[in-house]
Amino acid sequence: MRYALGLEYDGSGFLGWQIQQQQPTIQGCLEQAVARVADHEVRIVGCGRTDTGVHARCQVAHFDSDADRSERSWLLGINSQLPDGISLLWIRQVDEDFHARFSAYSRTYQYLILNRRIRPALESNYVSWYRKSLKAERMNEAAQALLGNHDFSAFRAAACQANHAVREIQAIKVERAGNRVILDVTANGFLYHMVRNIAGSLLQIGNGEQPVEWMAQLLASRDRSRAAPTAAAAGLYLVGARYPDKYALPAAGIDFPDQSIH
Amino acid sequence: MRYALGLEYDGSGFLGWQIQQQQPTIQGCLEQAVARVADHEVRIVGCGRTDTGVHARCQVAHFDSDADRSERSWLLGINSQLPDGISLLWIRQVDEDFHARFSAYSRTYQYLILNRRIRPALESNYVSWYRKSLKAERMNEAAQALLGNHDFSAFRAAACQANHAVREIQAIKVERAGNRVILDVTANGFLYHMVRNIAGSLLQIGNGEQPVEWMAQLLASRDRSRAAPTAAAAGLYLVGARYPDKYALPAAGIDFPDQSIH
Repeated sequence: MRYALGLEYDGSGFLGWQIQQQQPTIQGCLEQAVARVADHEVRIVGCGRTDTGVHARCQVAHFDSDADRSERSWLLGINSQLPDGISLLWIRQVDEDFHARFSAYSRTYQYLILNRRIRPALESNYVSWYRKSLKAERMNEAAQALLGNHDFSAFRAAACQANHAVREIQAIKVERAGNRVILDVTANGFLYHMVRNIAGSLLQIGNGEQPVEWMAQLLASRDRSRAAPTAAAAGLYLVGARYPDKYALPAAGIDFPDQSIH
Repeated sequence: MRYALGLEYDGSGFLGWQIQQQQPTIQGCLEQAVARVADHEVRIVGCGRTDTGVHARCQVAHFDSDADRSERSWLLGINSQLPDGISLLWIRQVDEDFHARFSAYSRTYQYLILNRRIRPALESNYVSWYRKSLKAERMNEAAQALLGNHDFSAFRAAACQANHAVREIQAIKVERAGNRVILDVTANGFLYHMVRNIAGSLLQIGNGEQPVEWMAQLLASRDRSRAAPTAAAAGLYLVGARYPDKYALPAAGIDFPDQSIH
């Protein structure tokens, strides 16, 4: 039987999602935890690989097991085996053709920038600090040039292993909330470091170093060497992924809608 | 000359505000940092003492020094001497009669509750986790009984050293934002553990164990033994303090209002 699950994690304590020689990784911790509950080895497939320091509000993943466990047993058992920085939000049995990576219509990332002169004392692992004044509306205007199907080579890290650089950005928005500037971006898929490279270039437009039109020029150039440096990992969140309705995955988020008694 | 300052800190790395034998404390770290910049010993007075694990978005404090430093030199110098979990947001020279504790009209605290079934992986030091469903509107209705001048003995910890238990709550509000329930409370002053004791009792009203009227009954009883246990420290923030306009302290918060170029 195949199971889909939703995972929240704090990337600051881990060397990214993917299993590798160095420890700990999210995938590694999760495979260990699930194996203890299933009583056999498992391989976990995630919807997106996140780097060291990158967080997830809801990473969707799947694994296979014929162990006889209720969804509640899986949920409580796996959470009891996970370290503090990882929480299993939900788990559901799904059709055998579900694939966390290949079935996803889209992924959404959020990049949180603390925009003030003084470094953060609170939540320093959870925001990217930028000390020069940013114009969020300029950044938002520039970002709209990325909407749609494009070759994103200009925002692709050298180490990227994807076959090609064409992706479709379905929604992108930059807005200010108090002293935070928030970038939300949804695409059918992302290249390695793509969100952080887009964020890095948007920062140079927001601070006035580059004109709004620069984003479209960078995109058209397909030349990574022209774009700005990669923005910091802290502040980046994998927010979630969308799948066909037939899989009936739970909407991440609110356990208890408020229904006050009057 | 007297200086007022605003301080942000992450309480999870410190044993509270007040200097004591055990280290580190916020006041202790700040006195050391200011002393290095001033080149003489200083005594720092804060607007409120916070416990271990309690955060501050803006703790206001003051100290005296005749060292010849610009406000910019103080700001950069002190920040360079402070540990990562403490940031000096601003510093201003003020009238000699300014007193961080005695000049304050009011202090505001916020208590952040993550209300969901699964423990937090993200921001676990910054929220108080509560797994039973909470009705925020019930909690808000109950909290209104505390508005005004009252004897708050029912919400006062045994170790409290205040002369009397009468305080004036000027504003109190509970509301839900997604899976967070947020308590905001402003008073002319607070007794030891007062916010966390109020929060603990509101939780029992929010989860349906106690009726809305219970809050008024507890208050009238002046009996700490009847109220609920003290709620956890994580999730509590000293948001700020209000002072007479004549001191012209900066409004904490937004460095860079967004003024986009069109």
